[in-house]
Amino acid sequence: MEVHPSNIETAAQMESVQHLQGSEAVRERAYNGGGWLLSGIMCVNILLLGCALVSGSAFNSVAITTVHRQIFLIILLLLTILWMVFYSIITYRKNQALPLKDSHAGPVWLRAGLVLFGVLSLIMDIFKIANYVGYIHCDSPVKVAFPVVQAVFLFVQTYFLWIHAQDCVQLHKNFTRYGLAVTLSTNLVLWMAAVTEESVHQTEIPENANVTRSIDLQPPILVSAGYGDDKCKCSHSSCSLFKEAYFYLYPFNIEYSLFASAMAYVMWHNVGRVVEDHSHRNTKFCLKHMYVGPVAGILLVLAGLATFIVYEVEVVEENQEKINNALMMHFIMNIVIVSLMSVSTVVGCAIYRLDKRERVSEKNPTRSLDVGLLVGASIGQFIISYFTIVAVVATGAKGHLNALNLAWAILTVVQLGLQNFFIIEGLHREPLRAVQEAELHVSGHALQSHTEMSVILKNNKPRNNFTSTQDRLSCKRRALKEVCLFLLLANAILWIMPAFGARPQFDHSVEIKFYKFTMWAAIVNIGLPFGIFYRMHSVASLLELYVMS
Amino acid sequence: MEVHPSNIETAAQMESVQHLQGSEAVRERAYNGGGWLLSGIMCVNILLLGCALVSGSAFNSVAITTVHRQIFLIILLLLTILWMVFYSIITYRKNQALPLKDSHAGPVWLRAGLVLFGVLSLIMDIFKIANYVGYIHCDSPVKVAFPVVQAVFLFVQTYFLWIHAQDCVQLHKNFTRYGLAVTLSTNLVLWMAAVTEESVHQTEIPENANVTRSIDLQPPILVSAGYGDDKCKCSHSSCSLFKEAYFYLYPFNIEYSLFASAMAYVMWHNVGRVVEDHSHRNTKFCLKHMYVGPVAGILLVLAGLATFIVYEVEVVEENQEKINNALMMHFIMNIVIVSLMSVSTVVGCAIYRLDKRERVSEKNPTRSLDVGLLVGASIGQFIISYFTIVAVVATGAKGHLNALNLAWAILTVVQLGLQNFFIIEGLHREPLRAVQEAELHVSGHALQSHTEMSVILKNNKPRNNFTSTQDRLSCKRRALKEVCLFLLLANAILWIMPAFGARPQFDHSVEIKFYKFTMWAAIVNIGLPFGIFYRMHSVASLLELYVMS
Repeated sequence: MEVHPSNIETAAQMESVQHLQGSEAVRERAYNGGGWLLSGIMCVNILLLGCALVSGSAFNSVAITTVHRQIFLIILLLLTILWMVFYSIITYRKNQALPLKDSHAGPVWLRAGLVLFGVLSLIMDIFKIANYVGYIHCDSPVKVAFPVVQAVFLFVQTYFLWIHAQDCVQLHKNFTRYGLAVTLSTNLVLWMAAVTEESVHQTEIPENANVTRSIDLQPPILVSAGYGDDKCKCSHSSCSLFKEAYFYLYPFNIEYSLFASAMAYVMWHNVGRVVEDHSHRNTKFCLKHMYVGPVAGILLVLAGLATFIVYEVEVVEENQEKINNALMMHFIMNIVIVSLMSVSTVVGCAIYRLDKRERVSEKNPTRSLDVGLLVGASIGQFIISYFTIVAVVATGAKGHLNALNLAWAILTVVQLGLQNFFIIEGLHREPLRAVQEAELHVSGHALQSHTEMSVILKNNKPRNNFTSTQDRLSCKRRALKEVCLFLLLANAILWIMPAFGARPQFDHSVEIKFYKFTMWAAIVNIGLPFGIFYRMHSVASLLELYVMS
Repeated sequence: MEVHPSNIETAAQMESVQHLQGSEAVRERAYNGGGWLLSGIMCVNILLLGCALVSGSAFNSVAITTVHRQIFLIILLLLTILWMVFYSIITYRKNQALPLKDSHAGPVWLRAGLVLFGVLSLIMDIFKIANYVGYIHCDSPVKVAFPVVQAVFLFVQTYFLWIHAQDCVQLHKNFTRYGLAVTLSTNLVLWMAAVTEESVHQTEIPENANVTRSIDLQPPILVSAGYGDDKCKCSHSSCSLFKEAYFYLYPFNIEYSLFASAMAYVMWHNVGRVVEDHSHRNTKFCLKHMYVGPVAGILLVLAGLATFIVYEVEVVEENQEKINNALMMHFIMNIVIVSLMSVSTVVGCAIYRLDKRERVSEKNPTRSLDVGLLVGASIGQFIISYFTIVAVVATGAKGHLNALNLAWAILTVVQLGLQNFFIIEGLHREPLRAVQEAELHVSGHALQSHTEMSVILKNNKPRNNFTSTQDRLSCKRRALKEVCLFLLLANAILWIMPAFGARPQFDHSVEIKFYKFTMWAAIVNIGLPFGIFYRMHSVASLLELYVMS
C-alpha cells in the first residue's frame, strides 16, 4: 500500500486521529479507574494498620503481644491464600481468555530468586515449628499455627507468582485488583514484621557486650518480641539449636517478602493493561572470556568473608583492645571494598559516555519500579552514612578509629551516588542485541517503503554508522560486563556482612554517645534493612545489566 | 486537504512514523539524561545532609548548635539567591529564547498563596530579627544574620517563581537543572528545620502541664533549640512579645517552603520539555447561587474556632476535670466535623458515578505531583490515627474519653480515604468548560473532514448525547460545587486547629502510656506536620476542583 506524500505532511490530521484513538483507550480505563484507586487506598490502610500493630507489639509487650500480631497475620495470609487459589482456578478454566503477557514482568532471575528464598523461608518455618512445639505446653498454640500457615502460604504464593507473574489480567478486573492489593499488603506487613523481629534480635547483642556498658545508655525501649517465656521451659533438648538456626534464615525470608511484593505490585499495575506481545529476549548468562571482573570480585568476597568472621568472633569478647582491633579491620576492609567499587563504577560510567546506545522510552512498570526501589532503598544507607559523618565531624574525629569511620561513611556516600547513576543509566539503555536487531529491521523497512518515508528514516544518524563501529563496541561491551560482574560480587559481600549480623554502628560508641541510644537505634534499625535490601537489589539489577550489555 | 480512505486503514504505517518521531525526541533527551539524574542525586544528598544536621541540632545541643545549622542554611540560601539572580539576568537578555510555557504549572492560586505566605514569613523574619537583636551582646550574631538572609531569599525567590514558574527551560539545560535542584533542596531543608523547631516548641508545653506529670515519663530527648540562653538577658523590653508572636507565624513559613518546593520541582521536571502552548483556561472563581455549602462550611469553621479557643484556654489549667471537659469538647467537635465531611464526600462520589465526564490522560507533572503529595501527606495523619486505634483498642477503651478518641480516629481514617478518592478522581476529570469547547470543536471538525474520518468521530458516543443532558449536568455541577466548598472550609478548620497548637495527642495520656513518651512524640512530631500539610493541600486541590466543575 502506498503512502501519499500529501498525507505525510498533514501531521495535524494524523495527530487528531491519534488523539481520538487515545481518548478511546482513556474512556475504557476510566470505567475501571475507581477500582484501581480504591484497591490502592485499601492496600495503604492494611499496611498502616499492620505497621501500628507490629510497632505496638515490638515496643509494648504488655497489651499487644506477639500472639495478637500473629493472629492478624494469619487472617491476612488465609485471605491471600484463598484469593490465589480462587484466581488460579478461574484462569485454569478460562485459559483462552488470558493471552496478554507483559514480557518485562517477572524475569527469570526474579522468579528463580523467589523460589530460592522461598525454599530457605520454608526451612525457617520448619525450624520455628520445631522450636515452638517444645513450648506448646505452656505457651500459646498460635505461635505454632503461624509458621504452619506461613509455610502453606509460601508454597501457594511461589506457585502462583511463578505461573502468573506476567499476566495482564482482563477478566474480573476490579476483583483481581483487590486481590492483588491484599497480596501486596500481606507481603509488606510480613516484611515489616520480619525486619522488626530481626532488628530487635540484632540490637539485643551489643547491650550485653562490654563496649556499650560503660556508656550512660538510656533504658532501651525495645523489648524482646517474646521467643518463649523465661518461666516456660522447652520440652525437648534441641530448642536452643533451632532458635539459633532460624535467625540465620531471617535475611532470606525478608528478601522473599520483598521479591513477592515487587511481583505483586507489577501484576497489580498491569491489570487491564493492553500490551503488544513482544517476543522474548533471549537472556543468556555466559561467563566466557571474563577474567578480571570475576576473579577480582571473588577475591574481594573471600577477603570480606574472612575479615567478617574474625570480626564477629572478636567483637563479642570482653577485651576492649581486641574489639577495637576487630573494628579497625572491619572499617579498613569496608573502605577497600567501597573504594574499589567507586573506581570501577567511574570506569563503567566513562564507557557509557563513549557508548552511543539509545535510551529506551517504552512504558515499562517493572523498570520504573526497579529504579524507584533502588533509589528509595539507597536512602536508608545514605541516612546512616550522613548521620555518622555529622556525628564524627561534630565530635572532632579524634583517634584513628573515628577517622576510619568517617572515611568509610564519606566513601559509602560517593559509592552509592555513583552506583545509582551507573545502574539507572544502564537500565535505560537499549540492550545491545536489540540494537542489532533494530538495525536489521530498520534497513529492511526502509527498502520497502516510499522515498518520502525513508527521508525520515535517514534522520536516525547514529544507527547508520553502527556497523562500522561494531568492533570497538564489542571491546566496550566486554569492559562493561567485567565492571558489572565485579560490582555484583562486591555488592554481594556488602549484603552478606550486615545481613548476617555485623553491627559496627553499635560496637563503635561515637554515634550512640552523640545521638543517645534510642535515637541511634531507631535510625540504624530503620535505615539498615533498607540498606541491606539495596545491596541485594543492586545484585539483581547488575545481573540484568550484565545480560543486557 | 483530503485524507485518502486507503491511508486511514494503514494504521501500522502511521504507528511507525509516530514511533520514529518518538525516538527522535528520546535521543534528544538522552543527551541530557545524565544531567537530570546527577542533579537529582545531588538534591537527595543535600537533603539528607540537611536532615542529619537538623536532627543533630535538635537532639544534641552540645556538639551541633543552632548556629551550625544556621550557617549551613545561610550557605544554601546564598547559593540559591545567586543562581536565581543569574538565571533572571540570562533570561531577561535572551527573552526570545524562552517561548515555551507549561500552562498547567504554577496556577494562579498557587502563586497567590506563595505571595501571601511569603509576606507572612517576611513578618516572621522581621520579628525574629527584632528579638535576636536584643540578645546580640551575649549570643552569636549568626542568629541575626540568618533571618536577614532569609528575608532577602524570600523576596528574590517569590519574584523568581512568580515570573518563571511556567518556564520549560531550553537554554543551559544542565546548569538550570543543578540550580533548580539546589533551590528544591534548600526549600526542603528550610521546611525540615522549621517543622523541627515548631515541633520542639509544641512538645515542650504539655510537659509543663499537669496532665502528663503524673505519668512516669522517660526523660524527654528533645532539647530546646536555643531561643536565647537562660543566662543571656534581652536588652530591650519587647523580646518575649516578639518571641510569642513569631511562633504563630511558623505554620505559614512551613507552607511557604512547601509551595516553593512544589513549584521548583515542577520547573526542574519541565527543563527541556517540549510542550504545545495550550491556551489558558479561564479560571473564574464566582460564588453566585452557592448557598448550602458555604453557609454550612462557615458555620462549621466558626463553631470549630470557638471550641478551639476554649480548648486552648482550658487545657493549660491545673484542674484535671477542666482538662477532661475541654478534651471531650474537642473530640466531639472533631467527630462532628469529620462525620459531616464523610457524608458530603460520599454525596460527591455519587455525583461522579452519575457524571460521565472523561478522564484526562495528557501528561501533566503538576497534577502527578499534586496527587503524589496528597497521598504522601495523608499517610502522616493515617499513621497517627492507626496508632491511636491500636493503643485504645489494646487498652480496652474504658471511659467515654477513650471511646470518643477511638471514634475520632476511626472516622478520620474513613474521611481521609474518601477525600483522597474524591479529589484524585476529580483532578483526573476533564473540566466541564473544556468538555463544552471540545464538543463545539469536534462537531466543527467532523463537518470539515471526510466521511471516513467522521466515522471515527462518531464512535465518541458519550459526547454526542451531551447537549441533551446539559440541563441535568448543570444541576450536578451545582451540587458538586457545593460539596467542594463545604469540604474546603471543613479542611481549613481542621488545618487551623493543629497548626495553631492543638495537641490532644499529648493532652490525653492513653497513647503516651502505651507507646512511652519518646516513641509517641516521634510519631506525632513526624506525622502531624504531614497531616497539617495534607489539610492545607486539600484546600488548594478542592479550590481547583471547584473552579474546574
